[in-house]
Amino acid sequence: MINNFQNLIEVAQNQNKMKLAVAAAQEHEVLTSVCNAYNLGIVDPILTGNRVQINKIADEYKLDISNFRIIDTDTLEKAAYEAVKLVSIGEADFVMKGILDTSTLLKAVLNKECGLRSGNLLSHVMVYKVENYNKFLVLTDGGMNIEPTLYEKVDILKNSIEVVRKLGYKTIKVACLAAKEKVSSKMKSTVDAASIKQLSIEGEFGEDVIVEGPIALDLAISKEAAEIKNFESEVSGDADIILVPAIEVGNGIGKAMTLFANAQQGGLIMGAKAPVVMVSRSDTHEAKLNSIALGSVVANKNNR
Amino acid sequence: MINNFQNLIEVAQNQNKMKLAVAAAQEHEVLTSVCNAYNLGIVDPILTGNRVQINKIADEYKLDISNFRIIDTDTLEKAAYEAVKLVSIGEADFVMKGILDTSTLLKAVLNKECGLRSGNLLSHVMVYKVENYNKFLVLTDGGMNIEPTLYEKVDILKNSIEVVRKLGYKTIKVACLAAKEKVSSKMKSTVDAASIKQLSIEGEFGEDVIVEGPIALDLAISKEAAEIKNFESEVSGDADIILVPAIEVGNGIGKAMTLFANAQQGGLIMGAKAPVVMVSRSDTHEAKLNSIALGSVVANKNNR
Repeated sequence: MINNFQNLIEVAQNQNKMKLAVAAAQEHEVLTSVCNAYNLGIVDPILTGNRVQINKIADEYKLDISNFRIIDTDTLEKAAYEAVKLVSIGEADFVMKGILDTSTLLKAVLNKECGLRSGNLLSHVMVYKVENYNKFLVLTDGGMNIEPTLYEKVDILKNSIEVVRKLGYKTIKVACLAAKEKVSSKMKSTVDAASIKQLSIEGEFGEDVIVEGPIALDLAISKEAAEIKNFESEVSGDADIILVPAIEVGNGIGKAMTLFANAQQGGLIMGAKAPVVMVSRSDTHEAKLNSIALGSVVANKNNR
Repeated sequence: MINNFQNLIEVAQNQNKMKLAVAAAQEHEVLTSVCNAYNLGIVDPILTGNRVQINKIADEYKLDISNFRIIDTDTLEKAAYEAVKLVSIGEADFVMKGILDTSTLLKAVLNKECGLRSGNLLSHVMVYKVENYNKFLVLTDGGMNIEPTLYEKVDILKNSIEVVRKLGYKTIKVACLAAKEKVSSKMKSTVDAASIKQLSIEGEFGEDVIVEGPIALDLAISKEAAEIKNFESEVSGDADIILVPAIEVGNGIGKAMTLFANAQQGGLIMGAKAPVVMVSRSDTHEAKLNSIALGSVVANKNNR
């Protein structure tokens, strides 16, 4: 069971080395993070994009990319297409967004012929580690699905469960977040949370998953808060996954953890046949490396 | 300008002593927090509720309530009614919820004859202090209005602005939260945020208020994040108020601050003719005192 990012990186270093296809790699920060991951032995990168620009940036920033295969493409669309195709035909294990729009990459991922369509909803899975929580906390979906329906929430949860399973968790505890624990017809988050809990009881997510909801964040992660409020649940104080009702909730909680509690983080888009690494310009180098390592561990079919 | 809770308590101690009407005071934690506030010279309490029970609890926990006026009532409804009436007729300055349902107290607050109806929407205003933010951060509404309309958000914002003005802020910077900065018709939070910004430009909130939105939490409170993303605004990195689009957002961010970043907190319900203090059983003694001190400073008509 992987409990922190140092551990995650070690696992990524010691497993079969995954091949990472980088879509439109002609950007300094992207190339640097890929080189860092390569130098740590986490991935073998294959770059798509403008070869001249890639080489120029590597020269300028003294990045050694001599061992990387480069597929020269003249448009961002083609860079996305080629990177995704590498995974589709089995020459790469997962894909990473370089300097192109998310929509361009996702269009390639969802391409019917050579994309990575699995029939599942794509969703954003963020993994956080804060000092005073003794394991990872997975938050979903704070980056992609705006206001998911109940059925979409089920898919979002399944995607995040896949990540947590790959991290080696035997029992996975899920908190379906709301602002309180009582179901109220005026509060969709509480109704959906109760439905997902019921689906879980009926076996929708597998025997290793325990779902609680509706539940507010304090009871999900603090045993003390749960005791004071007399809330009894196997999940309370010990949640692995926080399933949020809307994008602003996940986005806000995640950013609060990063900004106010110096959380370390890494994230993926899940739901395609392979994980998609999508780092933000404002991510630290550490966060970028965490995301690549996470993608690498999740992409490894031998894991679990 | 009051920047932290120690300072807030000092101000509450040094101003005219406010009279606090406590509705249904027959509970140990409630009585203790009121006694603490009294002993610090923050409030003069008037208790409503079951006199026998109140005295019994005071004896049992050795709380000196000999200087408190007690209005004996035989039902919780009457306790709420009497406490609110004290404020309504000018014998108390603000009201605090004791051991009764929130709905019972609010029913009394909204009573047409002797309540505290002001015509404004009632909303929850939480004040947080985290170590790495150099002033208060006000979050609203994470406790009362579930999914406010644009017009309700305007009222919610006005209520929180009143609190911040009473804290002595000359310029008040507001971040209308969303998950990103671009307006998208698919994302109501971004559309409403842009509308509230426009209303602010047209003078809706007064000249001392600057509104930015849509804006995500990182850009609202971190200048570095705003710089990396080339987002220029007087608000970014310096927000005083975070206006959230739905209850789960405020609830989640607030709890993340408290649980992961050890935030200190205090909160009020605003929008009535006087602030309403509503502490939770799971609040620390410190948080309860903070809320009473905040109510006291906000209730003081001589402030601002």
